[in-house]
Amino acid sequence: MTYGLAEFIAAEEMSRSRGFWWSPGSDRLLVARADDAPVRRWWIADPAHPETEPARVAYPAAGTANADVRLFVVTLDGERTEVMWDRARYPYLARVHWSSAGAPLLLVQSRDQLSQLYLAVDPDDGSTRMVHAEEDPQWLELFPGAPSWSPSGRLVRIVDEGGARVLAVGERPLTGPQLHVRAVLDVADDDVLISASAGEAAAVPETGEVHVYRVNELGVERVSTVAGVHSAVRAGGLTVLVSATLDQPGSSVQVLRDGKQVATVASYAHHPGLTPRVTLTEGGARKIPCAVLLPTDYEEGSGPLPVLLDPYGGPHGQRVLAAHNPYLTSQWFADQGFAVIVADGRGTPGRSPAWEKEIRRDFTLTLDDQVDALQGLAATFPLDLERVAIRGWSYGGYLAGLAVLRRPDVFHAGVAGAPVTDWRLYDTHYTERYLGNPAEDPAPYALSSLVTEEGLVAPEVPHRPLMIVHGLADDNVVVAHALRLSSALLAAGRPHEVLPLSGVTHMTPQEQVAENLLLLQVDFLKRSLGLNRA
Amino acid sequence: MTYGLAEFIAAEEMSRSRGFWWSPGSDRLLVARADDAPVRRWWIADPAHPETEPARVAYPAAGTANADVRLFVVTLDGERTEVMWDRARYPYLARVHWSSAGAPLLLVQSRDQLSQLYLAVDPDDGSTRMVHAEEDPQWLELFPGAPSWSPSGRLVRIVDEGGARVLAVGERPLTGPQLHVRAVLDVADDDVLISASAGEAAAVPETGEVHVYRVNELGVERVSTVAGVHSAVRAGGLTVLVSATLDQPGSSVQVLRDGKQVATVASYAHHPGLTPRVTLTEGGARKIPCAVLLPTDYEEGSGPLPVLLDPYGGPHGQRVLAAHNPYLTSQWFADQGFAVIVADGRGTPGRSPAWEKEIRRDFTLTLDDQVDALQGLAATFPLDLERVAIRGWSYGGYLAGLAVLRRPDVFHAGVAGAPVTDWRLYDTHYTERYLGNPAEDPAPYALSSLVTEEGLVAPEVPHRPLMIVHGLADDNVVVAHALRLSSALLAAGRPHEVLPLSGVTHMTPQEQVAENLLLLQVDFLKRSLGLNRA
Repeated sequence: MTYGLAEFIAAEEMSRSRGFWWSPGSDRLLVARADDAPVRRWWIADPAHPETEPARVAYPAAGTANADVRLFVVTLDGERTEVMWDRARYPYLARVHWSSAGAPLLLVQSRDQLSQLYLAVDPDDGSTRMVHAEEDPQWLELFPGAPSWSPSGRLVRIVDEGGARVLAVGERPLTGPQLHVRAVLDVADDDVLISASAGEAAAVPETGEVHVYRVNELGVERVSTVAGVHSAVRAGGLTVLVSATLDQPGSSVQVLRDGKQVATVASYAHHPGLTPRVTLTEGGARKIPCAVLLPTDYEEGSGPLPVLLDPYGGPHGQRVLAAHNPYLTSQWFADQGFAVIVADGRGTPGRSPAWEKEIRRDFTLTLDDQVDALQGLAATFPLDLERVAIRGWSYGGYLAGLAVLRRPDVFHAGVAGAPVTDWRLYDTHYTERYLGNPAEDPAPYALSSLVTEEGLVAPEVPHRPLMIVHGLADDNVVVAHALRLSSALLAAGRPHEVLPLSGVTHMTPQEQVAENLLLLQVDFLKRSLGLNRA
Repeated sequence: MTYGLAEFIAAEEMSRSRGFWWSPGSDRLLVARADDAPVRRWWIADPAHPETEPARVAYPAAGTANADVRLFVVTLDGERTEVMWDRARYPYLARVHWSSAGAPLLLVQSRDQLSQLYLAVDPDDGSTRMVHAEEDPQWLELFPGAPSWSPSGRLVRIVDEGGARVLAVGERPLTGPQLHVRAVLDVADDDVLISASAGEAAAVPETGEVHVYRVNELGVERVSTVAGVHSAVRAGGLTVLVSATLDQPGSSVQVLRDGKQVATVASYAHHPGLTPRVTLTEGGARKIPCAVLLPTDYEEGSGPLPVLLDPYGGPHGQRVLAAHNPYLTSQWFADQGFAVIVADGRGTPGRSPAWEKEIRRDFTLTLDDQVDALQGLAATFPLDLERVAIRGWSYGGYLAGLAVLRRPDVFHAGVAGAPVTDWRLYDTHYTERYLGNPAEDPAPYALSSLVTEEGLVAPEVPHRPLMIVHGLADDNVVVAHALRLSSALLAAGRPHEVLPLSGVTHMTPQEQVAENLLLLQVDFLKRSLGLNRA
């Protein structure tokens, strides 16, 4: 039982990293209480160190109980008043906002994430009243910076309306289909500062760009200027704009007052030592956002290259960005002799609600889009479609496994890093959002998983070389995913390689591990595609 | 705390599988009590099933505390009398024998296994008196069926004397250097039934054979006739002789009375479906016992074959046997296109005490003998020394890893199954017998291990492909061995493959797992030796 902390699901899946909120007058707090007693226990061991006691963690897997989360008003002398709402119907406490512009504001969601309520809290007695309700037949997304009150007390939301993702203040949308709103950065009396990408109605696709805009009832003004990925913070009349562009490493920081630059913040970051040779484009009939990277020393016209797809390719992960640093690893792979393709197919963010939500109940669509992007790009880029590999981590690792197992006609080798392989083993809020409740309908889980209790799902022939990499200490995508895939492959007599990373969690920040992992992946890819032969 | 059970070390390393012994008159028992409180705890998890609580096991690793084992005389009404001996100096209770021919007889060993005592127990007061003491500068071996009393009350032992392993009754050796005694099968008034192989003074090496002999003061008589591996049980004037030979699958069972066959026991075992094409021979200057297997369809003179060494190659594991069934897996590998070599180098049993004990403080000698056997056999067998692989399980897995890391000039690929990689992680009684106490002298451990805390031990270049297979549920050679090797290889940037076997212990009796493991090994070996290329 914790007070004032974000529990696993809030932190991992709702981007809510805190569990307490001070009142504007600093005389009391809202405090979340999380009781994980109902949550199923899993053990995370360190089998490389058998003397280390395994950790017993509360992991809410899809279809199983979540932590019970309640909210209290707590005064400075410790008096507690519970905030009351229909928690049975709206168990997820997604957002809390408490400013001087109004009563404490909650955003609570139903377990199926098809409906949510904006609630205003009376902090004196804990009662709530509904400010607004939303429903969505696919699911409702959560956004950074929203909801909040405007200084004049109107509700600021980001909402999917008429096929677009718009900013709404009060009942009125302030943006239209030209913009795909990403986040609320600041709310002031006379405007709202947001970040957004080009919407479906935009004249130019602006692939991979994210801009900062000032929005009010008079219109929309773009604050950022050059093509790139921008964000900002604003306070006291000053806007600090952080900008990344394709041609410069790192990011540049400008300080703006009334739209004019008054200072810059210098960056002394080391130069990464390589420069992506990247083309942002669109691939296939669905105009999938793509980045194509060629070897630094590739001479135009010198023939097709083996291909490496390097996607994330799933929800909440945009990889095609008009910025320099996100491509460093991909360029390193390109410099090993590959044409590297990064494709953001359906399910990825930044384009439109429909693009994001078409994967409802079926993650295999994300593989279709990788294939379509590849085949579409082959008309204009030097791609050898007889030597195609795919690598990815997390959702991208899942995609790599799916690619090798379901489309061996397209893919000749894959590296699956920390892959989800059985979606029943992933968590509630993420997985049920897309695939529903497995206890009620297991079909979308079976369709989208690489393995079930019965073994491999719909494996095609021939079997392609697959390297599976997974951190044994991963408490997000547990190593059971990789091990069950390996067992099912073994049961099917399918060769594969596993790299179990001792002491490594879902990411590999350890420099040496990360570097050697890259080297071993390249070795595997070259071996598997027959690139080492004389 | 257990009563009447063999604790881990007794069962795993002393071949003592029981912990209680009835008196000849059935009026009381000797009962071993094992207290594992001093033993360090390890956790064995099932990371493929995170919902399964890890098992907490008492694992006495080299240099750490053993279970405290004591012995009690227990009467039928529950009265207990402790048996007293210098347990501080001789903590290992290796053997207990209680027959009507004498007082209860114990064999106890010092922790370093350089000295042992034969003790006679007074079951009335628990006191003991020393019957015999033995020392050995290398170590003292334990043997099946010994010690015991002869019916007339003389001590029956197997002992290394004058360079030979002989049967001694009382103070008198009954066999000489012509026989290498393996086990005592039965002790009668007029003879002792033993099994033995040819000793160093034998005229013919009888490679791989084990025979049954009747021995008394008048001489030695061989009971088994044909070349093969024989064992027997005897009681009431009947001898049941179990015989395996090279040319017949399974074993045949004869019932003998006064040396004459009076019956046979029919076998209805299924025919294994393949017949080993095996030559028993000696390899290299040291005349290492070897078996060479060629593909069933190999035509003499049709050129050299890629080589697969298939050893156990370590203590207590004889693989070169004049029997049919032990070669079935090796022949299956041969039929995939390999010349398969099984070599029993120094350290393996069945030849001589010196052969067995020369590995004291240095397991790497066992690799030298694999190399010598290979190179010696190349003069007479069609071996392609440019394509040499090695596979093995347990000690054989260790040898495969050692081969790839230390002798890449000889070996081009290896499959290490359930290998010991850091000898400090293996158990007390086994490991200290050969390598001493790591707390007192870590040098033999570092020399003989594949990895230490510092990483790979003495790795040579180039790196050769290595597949590591290990059961995650292995509570004998824990999977930490494989994981630490993999981590060290990764840290050194050396490609390798791991197959973690979920739910599998030190052996793989599951048919499907075992079969697919073989297929995946062949796939790996062919890939790694370049045998799949057109």
